[in-house]
Amino acid sequence: MSAAHQSDASATETPAGIVQGDLQDQKIAGYQSLLGVTPIQSVTLPGLQTQSGFKFDQVVVSYQTLGRLSPRRDNAILVGHALSGNAHVAGLHPDTGRPGWWDYHVGPGKAIDTDKFFVICSNVLGGCDGTTGPLSPRPDTGKPYGTDFPPVTVADMVAVQAKLIEHLGISRLLAVVGGSMGGMQALSWAVQFPERVRVCIPIATCASHSAMQIAFNEIGRRAIITDPNWNGGNYTPDCRPTHGLAVARMVGHVTYLSEYAMTRKFGRSLQPRVPAAADEAALFAVESYLHHQGESFVRRFDPNSYLYLTKALDQFDLFDGQPPEEVLSRLKARFLVISFASDWLYPPAQSQALVRWLKRCRVAATYINLETLYGHDSFLIENPEFAQVVRHYLDHELRSADTAKEAPAAG
Amino acid sequence: MSAAHQSDASATETPAGIVQGDLQDQKIAGYQSLLGVTPIQSVTLPGLQTQSGFKFDQVVVSYQTLGRLSPRRDNAILVGHALSGNAHVAGLHPDTGRPGWWDYHVGPGKAIDTDKFFVICSNVLGGCDGTTGPLSPRPDTGKPYGTDFPPVTVADMVAVQAKLIEHLGISRLLAVVGGSMGGMQALSWAVQFPERVRVCIPIATCASHSAMQIAFNEIGRRAIITDPNWNGGNYTPDCRPTHGLAVARMVGHVTYLSEYAMTRKFGRSLQPRVPAAADEAALFAVESYLHHQGESFVRRFDPNSYLYLTKALDQFDLFDGQPPEEVLSRLKARFLVISFASDWLYPPAQSQALVRWLKRCRVAATYINLETLYGHDSFLIENPEFAQVVRHYLDHELRSADTAKEAPAAG
Repeated sequence: MSAAHQSDASATETPAGIVQGDLQDQKIAGYQSLLGVTPIQSVTLPGLQTQSGFKFDQVVVSYQTLGRLSPRRDNAILVGHALSGNAHVAGLHPDTGRPGWWDYHVGPGKAIDTDKFFVICSNVLGGCDGTTGPLSPRPDTGKPYGTDFPPVTVADMVAVQAKLIEHLGISRLLAVVGGSMGGMQALSWAVQFPERVRVCIPIATCASHSAMQIAFNEIGRRAIITDPNWNGGNYTPDCRPTHGLAVARMVGHVTYLSEYAMTRKFGRSLQPRVPAAADEAALFAVESYLHHQGESFVRRFDPNSYLYLTKALDQFDLFDGQPPEEVLSRLKARFLVISFASDWLYPPAQSQALVRWLKRCRVAATYINLETLYGHDSFLIENPEFAQVVRHYLDHELRSADTAKEAPAAG
Repeated sequence: MSAAHQSDASATETPAGIVQGDLQDQKIAGYQSLLGVTPIQSVTLPGLQTQSGFKFDQVVVSYQTLGRLSPRRDNAILVGHALSGNAHVAGLHPDTGRPGWWDYHVGPGKAIDTDKFFVICSNVLGGCDGTTGPLSPRPDTGKPYGTDFPPVTVADMVAVQAKLIEHLGISRLLAVVGGSMGGMQALSWAVQFPERVRVCIPIATCASHSAMQIAFNEIGRRAIITDPNWNGGNYTPDCRPTHGLAVARMVGHVTYLSEYAMTRKFGRSLQPRVPAAADEAALFAVESYLHHQGESFVRRFDPNSYLYLTKALDQFDLFDGQPPEEVLSRLKARFLVISFASDWLYPPAQSQALVRWLKRCRVAATYINLETLYGHDSFLIENPEFAQVVRHYLDHELRSADTAKEAPAAG
């Protein structure tokens, strides 16, 4: 462990190792994806009105599909990405060669098996990796929306995903799966489109953010908007609030890891000194790691997008002020709810509260709290037990779908 | 709860309430201290050489004493303050009228009873509230040290406190008590001056920081040094890196509270809108609270001092690379070690590890993990169970000191 670290503070461990966040932030020497290079597509879809009342005439969506849609169009799985994710869910990126953020769990023979399922993943509305967001040009001025972009909600993200699914000719999804913000999308799908979701798999998520979850997000936002380069959201590409965004990412990173994971990876080991910097104070390895995480993140993420997406997370409320019974009685999907014992940012108690409500409303729900030691990021890392749970559940759904020979439900 | 909050986001609850950090950050309408107004003193002491080799010709120390020193000079208790604390431990401040940061637990009839004990508290070396620190003038230029101030360690802080104790004519302390950084000072006293400490009471602290504790501190430091106003540490009083320091304080604040405390105080309640700001996004109450905490902190704290003190925390290592048995075999003090079940920043496991080492080395140690629900800040808030534990232990020590009629030990 320490040897790998000493050679390059930014290097992650081998894929068998742990503690990295998304794969896409990492350099993984010699990493091979079973999918090879996977293309990312883009489509312009008819517009929509956001929950806040803003009308988009059209929306551009960046997405990726893997595997083949079955003749009955009943094997589609939509994957929702987390805050820092994008459409590139698995395989190697055509430009960068980096693996997609969920390459450990999406691919031939993997938990979400692309030999069996047609997997779809799209960048969310308000994101910054190909889908319409604050970086997109305003139709009237041609300049980026910046903070003129309307507030975005998880329901808005899901509404755009629904348009993409229609565009792909799919009337009903076999499953909607996602962790963290992706889990909120899965939950929102089950509520907004009960007829179009067979299985909902929310992972390491919650029905609404607690004060502590809001607080950590607000620290990140505050770091961004008090960076003078933020300039009310009207920054230029060569003068972005990168310091603020890096601090925000550092906060995120620490909250995604467990005490155990950090101790195992770093402990109190010191970063070896570079001779040229011999006059500087010794850095702990964990400090150097966080700096790298912050710096690599700012190269690929838009600060305004970070503000919009974290606000969407904080304002997400599955029940939206209604009695949970009323909301949940409309559901048709079956649920597999997964949490991780060491996840202190989205603690198991939140998943358990959700499952209690589902059970109370007679919604079919399986719940598992995995003893994985690596915190909130446990769904992003190589994790055989997690993979086994998801694989088994999906295979069972596929078999029962085959047995029932269901006709596709009306969209 | 919500009513109090709605009337003033910056107001704390009544003293019977909870969740505030130090008392000195709060406006507490009608708060009465049993001590009335308590003076803060200043003394210039002979210099010292820091662990890093820097020589101070003299050191100014801001301190407060409460109660009376007994004729035998055997009832002195030194209180170490935490990161954001200062010499003003209890009573009302002569200038601001605010209560000292530990007024709940220091005073007549309180856990640390000023009717029985002579209580001493001083601002630490490297601090910014009267003791020599980065804000102090350099003897050669008359300008603030800034980042020319030498690195400071917990051992350096304790060395200065030892000079203060000598100045006060005390050769042996009845007790050294402190929480968090104050707890590290207590531990360091027991190791550095075994003959001069009868009882050591480290609270919510550890023998050395974990990677996660370092990480949270580093986020705060990063926020400060990437604030353009930091300017390599050479800022002017009217152009300080206040944004960075405020973010650092926000990070600190969230880590000091428990999930339970934040949920109980704020939940997802919204900050009532001020009409003039009707176009702004709704703020959650917890966001507004954090903003206030950040803003009030920057008015009273020096950003460079924050950098130096957090570095001292991160680099503190009670055993300093030596075998724990060797270090602990030198101890003479008896220990009362206190942790809080809900403290996730300084988790009980760290105190338990310390106690295991003490027991293994046959050091008399009592350990209690209190079920207080309010996180790391549990030692700062009104907390009858905590008060009872400390009071009982100290009373017992005082009685056994009286019985033994010990002569003062040689300094």
